[in-house]
Amino acid sequence: MAPLAPRSGDAIFASVERVNAELFTLTYGAIVRQLLTDLEEVEEVNKQLDQMGYNIGIRLVDEFLAKSNVSRCTDFKETAEVIAKVGFKMFLGVTASVSNWDADGTCCSIILEDNPLVDFVELPDTCQGLYYCNVLSGVIRGALEMVSMKTEVTWVRDMLRGDDAFELQVKLLKQVPEEYPYKDDE
Amino acid sequence: MAPLAPRSGDAIFASVERVNAELFTLTYGAIVRQLLTDLEEVEEVNKQLDQMGYNIGIRLVDEFLAKSNVSRCTDFKETAEVIAKVGFKMFLGVTASVSNWDADGTCCSIILEDNPLVDFVELPDTCQGLYYCNVLSGVIRGALEMVSMKTEVTWVRDMLRGDDAFELQVKLLKQVPEEYPYKDDE
Repeated sequence: MAPLAPRSGDAIFASVERVNAELFTLTYGAIVRQLLTDLEEVEEVNKQLDQMGYNIGIRLVDEFLAKSNVSRCTDFKETAEVIAKVGFKMFLGVTASVSNWDADGTCCSIILEDNPLVDFVELPDTCQGLYYCNVLSGVIRGALEMVSMKTEVTWVRDMLRGDDAFELQVKLLKQVPEEYPYKDDE
Repeated sequence: MAPLAPRSGDAIFASVERVNAELFTLTYGAIVRQLLTDLEEVEEVNKQLDQMGYNIGIRLVDEFLAKSNVSRCTDFKETAEVIAKVGFKMFLGVTASVSNWDADGTCCSIILEDNPLVDFVELPDTCQGLYYCNVLSGVIRGALEMVSMKTEVTWVRDMLRGDDAFELQVKLLKQVPEEYPYKDDE
């Protein structure tokens, strides 16, 4: 059988089941609010959102591989492009761009100008240290780990902090050999 | 200007911004898991999910009224039908049905056979008292309160507990006079 060509993010997004974006935005807002109430420390909330994202990412990657017809990417550079162009479109309905590559191709930025997570969101003064969208960094980290890439994902720009875009720096730490994702004792 | 006819849930759902349903399902699952970890007591988790839903419902009703061209319903019976046929379709992409009306038209059931919140969900034995979808009862209660109907919303059937559908009983407690929703001191 001839290999299937990867489908565009638009085509996939049009074909998957979807829910109303405002419901999603408000639901995500409810999580953040809940965490702020329960954990009090903004730093702890950032950590928890990242962890939630990680747990989502390691599951979402299956849906991504199943629906996108993307075959295993050859390198980190191709992977980053696929996340930005296909992944973001497929899940959030928006397209991101990739830039700021370092010389050896192990570090880049994923830039997002339209972000449904933050519609109607304004941070009060008490939340200035919050990375409201930190779930996204966790999702990327988790999804990449499932395709054998250990990464560090950090925010460089954040529109809720007054920047002109959302920018996530994704740094490849190492490419681990493929292994069965579940340990025997789990 | 001639009054606008209400639009069908399908037409509205096709026109609003949407996100991937699996992302929503996993995000909602992450909330429930987080609450179970933080609050420990299943009863507390039920309460918190309902409260989150209430907060979402009182915001969502604006989007609903803006996008659906539904004018103020004449009575509770019409309201329940609109929630089931237009509201569920518009936000979750599924249609619910209304049945089990009591004699005086103040209590009915909203029945859902397809529910994107529970895709891939199985409750472990430790969570038997959990109403996993309790956010929905809160959303309905919150949204109805914003159109002056105080209700009590309780689960009658739950597919995660082995029933053949999700059934929410919605009981109209009183219709309060319309008032400006924000108090001066808020």
